[in-house]
Amino acid sequence: MGKNIILLGATGSIGMQTADIIREHHTEFTLRGFSAGKNIQVVKQLIQEFRPEIVCVQREEDATELRREFPGVSFVFGHAGLIETATYDADVLVNAVIGSVGLEPTLEAIKLGRTIAIANKETLVTAGHLVLGSAKKYGADVLPVDSEHSALFQALNGEKREQASRLILTASGGSFRDSTREELKNVTVKEALNHPNWSMGAKITIDSATMINKGLEVIEAHVLFDFPYADIDVLLHRESIIHSMVEFQDTSVIAQLGTPDMRVPIQYALSYPDRLPRPEAKRLNLAELGKLHFREMDFERFHALKLAFDAGKTGGTMTTVLNAANEQAVAMFLNEEIKFLQIEELIERAMDHHEVISAPDLETILHVDAETRKSVKNMLK
Amino acid sequence: MGKNIILLGATGSIGMQTADIIREHHTEFTLRGFSAGKNIQVVKQLIQEFRPEIVCVQREEDATELRREFPGVSFVFGHAGLIETATYDADVLVNAVIGSVGLEPTLEAIKLGRTIAIANKETLVTAGHLVLGSAKKYGADVLPVDSEHSALFQALNGEKREQASRLILTASGGSFRDSTREELKNVTVKEALNHPNWSMGAKITIDSATMINKGLEVIEAHVLFDFPYADIDVLLHRESIIHSMVEFQDTSVIAQLGTPDMRVPIQYALSYPDRLPRPEAKRLNLAELGKLHFREMDFERFHALKLAFDAGKTGGTMTTVLNAANEQAVAMFLNEEIKFLQIEELIERAMDHHEVISAPDLETILHVDAETRKSVKNMLK
Repeated sequence: MGKNIILLGATGSIGMQTADIIREHHTEFTLRGFSAGKNIQVVKQLIQEFRPEIVCVQREEDATELRREFPGVSFVFGHAGLIETATYDADVLVNAVIGSVGLEPTLEAIKLGRTIAIANKETLVTAGHLVLGSAKKYGADVLPVDSEHSALFQALNGEKREQASRLILTASGGSFRDSTREELKNVTVKEALNHPNWSMGAKITIDSATMINKGLEVIEAHVLFDFPYADIDVLLHRESIIHSMVEFQDTSVIAQLGTPDMRVPIQYALSYPDRLPRPEAKRLNLAELGKLHFREMDFERFHALKLAFDAGKTGGTMTTVLNAANEQAVAMFLNEEIKFLQIEELIERAMDHHEVISAPDLETILHVDAETRKSVKNMLK
Repeated sequence: MGKNIILLGATGSIGMQTADIIREHHTEFTLRGFSAGKNIQVVKQLIQEFRPEIVCVQREEDATELRREFPGVSFVFGHAGLIETATYDADVLVNAVIGSVGLEPTLEAIKLGRTIAIANKETLVTAGHLVLGSAKKYGADVLPVDSEHSALFQALNGEKREQASRLILTASGGSFRDSTREELKNVTVKEALNHPNWSMGAKITIDSATMINKGLEVIEAHVLFDFPYADIDVLLHRESIIHSMVEFQDTSVIAQLGTPDMRVPIQYALSYPDRLPRPEAKRLNLAELGKLHFREMDFERFHALKLAFDAGKTGGTMTTVLNAANEQAVAMFLNEEIKFLQIEELIERAMDHHEVISAPDLETILHVDAETRKSVKNMLK
């Protein structure tokens, strides 16, 4: 009765919203274990509320302190702890960590045939072929949590993959959708963090502003749904009401719509193939909205999106470079070490300097990832 | 290998577009038989092109003449001929006749377990409980052809009925969507026949202008998908791009979109559960459209829609009265015997005078249908 959940990245934005869903449906879902970083206050609250069996934190000293306070819970820490938590006995692993640190734990859980609800797009961008290849081998389901991919997944429900002709990802345009490139030169961190539609973490909000987030999503869609890049379109849709669409070969288009609320796709990934009620959620009212707007994507204005398509088409280690360079550059922007437009500039330079390795294994990917971060860090020195 | 099709109402708008689909996919579909009225020129063309085994026409003299010209084809006529054609050996019966004349042939084909592709909404409005009850009993599939119901059917694909919470039918608003009731008083037949989005027959175009078409569709949706009227909404959407939507209990909304082209839902009903290519069809381009508009339905402005909801909620023979009164009144309007707003006036008077019979059998329905037509015809005398 019900599903046991392991949640990686519990104190982040997706993690906390996943906890909301588990709370709302406590007869359906049990939080059996979770991981977090250094936010020990929130870790304690989550333990008190959900009474998990295993908890992973980043630092050993935090684990030691927590052991004293909660003797009934098993505490682990660091990278090894993250893998131990990810592979702890459960039905669904929700991977909601930020960055490529989620890759190895996910691969280990897949080997056990676990259902993976994946919010950590960097894992798929960096090593999609390993994740999906392994999932196929071990019979593990990989379910999207991102609103766009959840929409595509729902639109493909009951349909035959080979009769679908095109994926259409919608993009709100992020914090600066109406700004020219000239106006982007001097935007501040605070301005970039002000997303018009979605309440999300800092890294993904910056990624939305540069539009590389949509590029990562394009690569993720390519990996998850096995569509060539030529059959993946991005459409500007400022309201974020149509979360994405699939076109079929009979010209029918199936779309998933809703008010922007991450809890809907999170819940769907947990409840799939069922849909559970969300009585407190805001229902879509199109008459109240009046209009939905659509505009063609501008690849010159949103240069980072073009870089992502380029990296995806090149394949091999190039998507690892794209992702690692972006993670490093966003961190530098949030630290006010570089300006906003330098994010894409650093990514492009990293891609230009990289010699692609095809079908890389995990070791190669982790090596390229680390090297790229180091080189981006030193690019401006 | 392929499906054999029987097409009732071949020379009408839906019938001719069904023939287009069979032509485009001649390796998938064979037109084994069809019915038509008095348009013998088109009947001859269809026979020459498709070489059917059985053809039904309205008049005996036409059947006699055709027998001489096409000795290899079996010709039948009139009501008995229509039933013989409907029950002729095939995989799918497309019911594209206009009005309640399609009811008995459909019921007979259902008894043989045939898949019914139903474009003839009057059949479902008049006797939905008989058609769906019988389909259940004999294991026959009833597939919608109307673009709205096809959209709902596609949105429900792969989902569980009990997890769907609401049907949202979209309505373009018809020829007079921006006219006030005052302006409707003196509109001409020609003006009413000028639909902004869809190319359809005369009767359904007038039904769109009065909005009773949407009302008939609401009743049809209630019958086909087993939703209570309280969970069926109608939304004004002038572009007819979103063809209808289903809301689920998790607040997700699944919609089917496309350029307005009846051949898409017709083909889907024939190819279901597969989707066949439509290489010559116009693909949806939302960026080119730029905007989609939505407005709440105005039940005072569109009084006929309110009458339809009332008839549906009352149930029993009331939907038969609604439909028969409308058919008679539309014929009178097209003959310029009454004014546009008198269509709904006559329907309302017929409903007001009717004493409802619950769970009517076929005989009762046919009797009420005939009586209603007669009484509406004489209302203004």
